[in-house]
Amino acid sequence: MPPRSQPVVELLCVGTELLNGKLNTHLPFFAGRLRGAGLRLARESTVPDDPRALAAAAREALARCDALIVCGGLGPTFDDLTRPALADALGLGLDFRPELYAGIRRRFARLGARLPAENRRQAFLLRGARALPNREGSAPGQLLQLRRPPRPPQLVALLPGPLHELSPMFDAHVLPRLRSLYGRGRAAATWTLRLCGLPESAADERLRPLTRRANGGLDFTILFSDYGQVELNAVALASSARAARRAIGAVRRRALRLAGPYVFGEGDQTLAGAVGRMLRRRRLTLAVAESCTAGLLAARLTETPGSSAYFRGGVTAYHNDLKRGLLGVRERTLSRRGAVSRDAALEMAQGVRRAAGARLGLAVTGVAGPGGGAPGRPVGRVFLALAGPGAGARAERFDFPGGRQCVRRRAVAAALRLLWEALRRPGGISK
Amino acid sequence: MPPRSQPVVELLCVGTELLNGKLNTHLPFFAGRLRGAGLRLARESTVPDDPRALAAAAREALARCDALIVCGGLGPTFDDLTRPALADALGLGLDFRPELYAGIRRRFARLGARLPAENRRQAFLLRGARALPNREGSAPGQLLQLRRPPRPPQLVALLPGPLHELSPMFDAHVLPRLRSLYGRGRAAATWTLRLCGLPESAADERLRPLTRRANGGLDFTILFSDYGQVELNAVALASSARAARRAIGAVRRRALRLAGPYVFGEGDQTLAGAVGRMLRRRRLTLAVAESCTAGLLAARLTETPGSSAYFRGGVTAYHNDLKRGLLGVRERTLSRRGAVSRDAALEMAQGVRRAAGARLGLAVTGVAGPGGGAPGRPVGRVFLALAGPGAGARAERFDFPGGRQCVRRRAVAAALRLLWEALRRPGGISK
Repeated sequence: MPPRSQPVVELLCVGTELLNGKLNTHLPFFAGRLRGAGLRLARESTVPDDPRALAAAAREALARCDALIVCGGLGPTFDDLTRPALADALGLGLDFRPELYAGIRRRFARLGARLPAENRRQAFLLRGARALPNREGSAPGQLLQLRRPPRPPQLVALLPGPLHELSPMFDAHVLPRLRSLYGRGRAAATWTLRLCGLPESAADERLRPLTRRANGGLDFTILFSDYGQVELNAVALASSARAARRAIGAVRRRALRLAGPYVFGEGDQTLAGAVGRMLRRRRLTLAVAESCTAGLLAARLTETPGSSAYFRGGVTAYHNDLKRGLLGVRERTLSRRGAVSRDAALEMAQGVRRAAGARLGLAVTGVAGPGGGAPGRPVGRVFLALAGPGAGARAERFDFPGGRQCVRRRAVAAALRLLWEALRRPGGISK
Repeated sequence: MPPRSQPVVELLCVGTELLNGKLNTHLPFFAGRLRGAGLRLARESTVPDDPRALAAAAREALARCDALIVCGGLGPTFDDLTRPALADALGLGLDFRPELYAGIRRRFARLGARLPAENRRQAFLLRGARALPNREGSAPGQLLQLRRPPRPPQLVALLPGPLHELSPMFDAHVLPRLRSLYGRGRAAATWTLRLCGLPESAADERLRPLTRRANGGLDFTILFSDYGQVELNAVALASSARAARRAIGAVRRRALRLAGPYVFGEGDQTLAGAVGRMLRRRRLTLAVAESCTAGLLAARLTETPGSSAYFRGGVTAYHNDLKRGLLGVRERTLSRRGAVSRDAALEMAQGVRRAAGARLGLAVTGVAGPGGGAPGRPVGRVFLALAGPGAGARAERFDFPGGRQCVRRRAVAAALRLLWEALRRPGGISK
């Protein structure tokens, strides 16, 4: 049974740049986090860097909501407006906190930088607020709890603008408080299933028997992400954590049965992480040779902590000299077949295995564009090859649509999929 | 001379999915279109598919603004809420328009589909509104102009949710009306300056003589992006395109003088692109050796089309075997100083120059974490080295804060900055 009265949480984003064309990536972040706590975002507003507009919007929001999250405008510079505007909207003073200033001074000293006078502003707190430490930047956040008997207390959080600064701060300090103030008798369980190798519409069709049962307590979204990967998100809201988990458990069993062989992971798992786990379990090592993706594949494989257990390294052979010199691709292959060819990809995969002393070699060569296309070798043409014992050597050809960055990202996703499919094939690759 | 009173244009987005994690791509669309007409978006709000919340938000916005754009909620089914909610907020009736219904019927007949009863709702217009034809979907838009003497008339536009439906409708019918009502004698020009090597507050201090002159016709935002890079955006609104361009020209001259040696580019230019241009101009070639960044630096350098003119390739030496075997780092260096050391970085930079036949070698080695830290070698410790003729060989040590991905991205940005600073130093690096 879904919980009854929903607390009102609002988000107020501050930034002229958001009204000038910059994508607002804060909204999806907060939406996801709140949903995970069984809470919902009731409204979002964006105002420019204008103290009067901000104070007015804050005053309006405070009249409506139980919790207000304000992000942006805590900088040391001319965009420092959230502190004074919220002081105005709340009718509270700002207090200078010497200990905060000392912390900011230490941060600058550690970075070997001179502390500009403006940064002193970041040491002012709304009267009664608690400072939230910022591990990634100089602006501390602020958390203020107002008493509103007989209504529940009202919470106001001021967070810095950059997502990498505000997200750890929100998770560590604001979300737990939101949960304890408003999340009682409200529980949510979420679950994510990750698929690979299925087109969008086929994934949708396969999961339909599950997703058409969405209702007040259970909802689903299907996202098509990262070029050929599909993500199913399920949220169950219920009056207890146990009931929510039970609902999600049923969803999980059914989804795994429906999606079958296309599942590569759950939760936050990445395809690179899934491949890494399989490599580690079988004590296999991997090296990569890249041309058009120029390091992106290696970078993706090493996003997973601990990847040094199976990833040996790679060669980015942008110039043909490196394909010959470091990877041992034959001159004959390059001159007859070209650097973007099945044979070149296969020789690159074999070459990097040898050069890096790895069991498996994975290679990418292609034309990312916009230049470099030629008759019989259009922009978007990419060859992938995998070499190794048991794997033998196999190559695949692709013609990817889109611009330069798009072709490169699709090539990386396809290379990971090729490796994943080879590893999960029974008896496919072994030590 | 900037136009005097800026009309207030607000955007109201309707859609639970936007508060559930879907990116709002409408906001950048409208922001760009309005800016191009010399108008500004004064506020954006997003509300869920809830008629009461929508009517309340519309009422509040109508009290503030000259023009209100509402998008979403014009569907035939359960998400049909914008028509009744706006009728409520405006205190106007809804009229059934048989000619609109006939158009919807024809559309379904043409597609060979049965017309569901619900679609009849799409034939209701706010009293006094004009229907806006929808070439891409079934929901007509609506445009309503209210007289407000002595103030200028107020405009209300209801647009369908999907961007491909609303954008041609907005361009054909709403934007021209906005221009003619509020945009007379209004034009805009924009410009972006990119700096590197200055902390945010120091950049602000330097640019203050310029930015403190922000006024009705000229506005500035400073964004701190990509770890150590600073972006200054200027928008000039004026009564003619020529005057706007002239204002931006003056801003540009002054900003370039103030920011002096820290400027690496303008407009869309990236630091990797700026470095590439300098390399190309001096006919220099570059290769990179990476450990903790594992290909990210090579990938960033090759985001620029045409980078094959100066970028030879790279080696990702994740395992020490590759540092020895492919880069010629001495065993003695690895065992005495460790793989994360000034000497290892210098030998990697020299090694990759030789291996790739490049004039310049740039190397990164460090501990990205979360594991791998040790006494005297904390997580976040990174060494960068640059080797080449004229450059000699130089190394720098950093202790970056943040998690694994953050340390890696900061290391890439620092490597690009090191290279950029070496290239722009007079007589620093030559062929």
